[in-house]
Amino acid sequence: MSQSHQPGQLGQKGSAAPVDQEVGEPHPAGGALSGVRVLDFTQVILGPAATQVLADFGADVIKVERPASGDLARAFAPFWVHRDGSGSESTRYLSMNRNKRSLAVDLKAPEGRALIHRLVPHMDVVVSNFRPGVMESLGLGYDDLRRDNPRLIYAEGSGWGSRGPMAEGRKPGHELLGQALSGLAAKNAGPDGVPRAVPTTVSDFTASQLLVQGILLALLARARTGVGQRVEVSLLDGLLALQQWDEVSRLNLGERDTGVSDHHHPLQAVYRTADGFVALVGWFRPQPLANVCRALGLPDYTQDPHFATLEDLAQPANAEAMRAIIGERLLERSTAAWLEILEAHEVLCGEVLGPGEAYRHPQAIANGMVATVEHPALGAVQLVSSPVKLSGTPAEVRTPPPAIGEQTRAILVQAGLTPEEQERLVRCGAVADGGRAHPSPQTQRASQ
Amino acid sequence: MSQSHQPGQLGQKGSAAPVDQEVGEPHPAGGALSGVRVLDFTQVILGPAATQVLADFGADVIKVERPASGDLARAFAPFWVHRDGSGSESTRYLSMNRNKRSLAVDLKAPEGRALIHRLVPHMDVVVSNFRPGVMESLGLGYDDLRRDNPRLIYAEGSGWGSRGPMAEGRKPGHELLGQALSGLAAKNAGPDGVPRAVPTTVSDFTASQLLVQGILLALLARARTGVGQRVEVSLLDGLLALQQWDEVSRLNLGERDTGVSDHHHPLQAVYRTADGFVALVGWFRPQPLANVCRALGLPDYTQDPHFATLEDLAQPANAEAMRAIIGERLLERSTAAWLEILEAHEVLCGEVLGPGEAYRHPQAIANGMVATVEHPALGAVQLVSSPVKLSGTPAEVRTPPPAIGEQTRAILVQAGLTPEEQERLVRCGAVADGGRAHPSPQTQRASQ
Repeated sequence: MSQSHQPGQLGQKGSAAPVDQEVGEPHPAGGALSGVRVLDFTQVILGPAATQVLADFGADVIKVERPASGDLARAFAPFWVHRDGSGSESTRYLSMNRNKRSLAVDLKAPEGRALIHRLVPHMDVVVSNFRPGVMESLGLGYDDLRRDNPRLIYAEGSGWGSRGPMAEGRKPGHELLGQALSGLAAKNAGPDGVPRAVPTTVSDFTASQLLVQGILLALLARARTGVGQRVEVSLLDGLLALQQWDEVSRLNLGERDTGVSDHHHPLQAVYRTADGFVALVGWFRPQPLANVCRALGLPDYTQDPHFATLEDLAQPANAEAMRAIIGERLLERSTAAWLEILEAHEVLCGEVLGPGEAYRHPQAIANGMVATVEHPALGAVQLVSSPVKLSGTPAEVRTPPPAIGEQTRAILVQAGLTPEEQERLVRCGAVADGGRAHPSPQTQRASQ
Repeated sequence: MSQSHQPGQLGQKGSAAPVDQEVGEPHPAGGALSGVRVLDFTQVILGPAATQVLADFGADVIKVERPASGDLARAFAPFWVHRDGSGSESTRYLSMNRNKRSLAVDLKAPEGRALIHRLVPHMDVVVSNFRPGVMESLGLGYDDLRRDNPRLIYAEGSGWGSRGPMAEGRKPGHELLGQALSGLAAKNAGPDGVPRAVPTTVSDFTASQLLVQGILLALLARARTGVGQRVEVSLLDGLLALQQWDEVSRLNLGERDTGVSDHHHPLQAVYRTADGFVALVGWFRPQPLANVCRALGLPDYTQDPHFATLEDLAQPANAEAMRAIIGERLLERSTAAWLEILEAHEVLCGEVLGPGEAYRHPQAIANGMVATVEHPALGAVQLVSSPVKLSGTPAEVRTPPPAIGEQTRAILVQAGLTPEEQERLVRCGAVADGGRAHPSPQTQRASQ
């Protein structure tokens, strides 16, 4: 792998990806995606979380951003003020844009779009997550770009897909709407029966990783066929797939009463202890309830006809009664004491950590799940590492999330534009040559 | 692509994957993973959901199962009784094992393990999701198998990874424990503050798709390096990555009060209507609250100092007050009426579907998310299709989930075993030549 400090030419496909020598040394074997070039039109979550994976594994990801405002996520609170007080960064933006290079282009300017067409022949992958129709309206649809490059993989993430009533209505997607339309929010309803969102990015993150899956599959297929293809994922489809373990039963057997859901079962629940909470899973033993009773020093309730079989135990009234019995007993000791007892009886169990504790837990640390990268304006920034551990070509956190247009000039040089062409693009506003100046939180809030 | 009915030889690497002509015709371009051979030791959810993706995209997945009992998931309720009443199938098992072939092998028998070593040189990928140490104790660890085949990709899914306190304690993983240790259950707590599991397989499914990601990355790396590598994912790491959009803020800024979480914000919530529920997202407009007020025919509450800025609105007491105001208004009309009004004002919104409705919604149908496959003992079985849509080499549902050892004989023939060798393995019980006879639900319940 080349250790040269000279910028690679975008035309040199298949060569090693550019390496930022200031920030990190590359793994000797190179990244799994070394040499893969990605033109990334995405913003906010779905797309950026996908292209960050590609970047972590060594792809050269060029993040196309609007001059001045950039990725919408840059305006999302909370903000982290620069050490010198000159501006701030959105921690949302920071969370999913490391290892990328930023090219600030005005896609509404004809010169900006012309630049994109000049870059596309050098690219392996184009990724976007606009509403259906936006890329086409810019002349950057799949049919437009594959004329520039038949090997191009054209990947799109959206709320609902590109066909069907919601896509045709050009309805925008959103985490909450994905959860609402997929049945997940209803399933997560509280005791009042009101559907409730799962309070994290389950829909966006799922779709992002599926988008990566599609891109990797298309890269593998291209190695055989020589041609690119279109890849589509949606928030809706991702969550429909996520629930298949439960929902294939319902699809085929209907709403037939199968008793209490596993997730409200007394043998699979979170209980309060004397000093906190414990998660308990009683399955995978020949006599699950009898074994839990033994562990907890309770009478063997399988002798009681209400709890004799797992089917009896799953009846809602019986399940509630058993939850109360187990719950009362668990209140008597500390979490640590119960974990030791439950483990000795081979009852699956674990601590219940607050979100602030989880990333500091010794197991998360052992797994290297928090990585630190030096940011020129903030200092050390903690990010969440790749959860995919490859022994030979591991993910790396090399460079901090870029400023808007930070690598504009370098990318134009690599693309072979003459100094005169570069100046013309900057002067007409079609591209912006970014520094690390950012709007302050005050400016952002004023946009409310 | 060969349309021959002759069984392929396992030794013919790179040839087209075997095609079951009885069930489906292959896509003309072949699958993205045509020719990739996978030896699959997984069971229950994490592993099978991963290898189903590989199978959907054309890999030949050989599911290694224990004779007689097979994948643990085969014993999980609910059960679907065969048309002829002779037995039943677990709908859990059915949900994630299509397109695979089953090889019934006793891994405790030396002859069974010898057979595995005979197969490994023909494989591209080995996948397992046992507790750490189990594959090694069978002599099937990475160091054992890469001696058989240095090109092998060795992929493992587990609860916690292969190092660190929980891995070293050989603690088993489980969906609920993954949610508990990652902070997700605490985040999903109800109003009583008791941590609550998200009632679906968010942890297992996330890890399964990350396992696919690792395998695809390793296949791409191998195309360049010529050697395989080890791939590891865990339930814990998957959910830590899933929450990074939220948690990078907390990691860097601490527990600093940033107001109410987005997911309990009045401008991003599920509300009751006159006849159901509506999900409403007020963001992405210059004046989000003013715009929602206008849409709902409410006074412009941004004139009230409690709600003047988004920061004011995010204060818990103000947020609750605004939820009550919006909630009261939305009760006055039907969901359909509100959707029309909200859309006219460019407020993001959507229906809130029950899990039974979601898969029948016109958008889910347009996306082809439910596929039907003919099962020899059950008839038409509905499964959830791949959410990753590739235009050139799409996923396919070709064959129903196999019976235990259904393809044992065919796989031994492909591996080049003589009829005498095959008979010896069957006679000593190291392999089982499966049919479609299954234990009945009664037998299963007795195992409680």
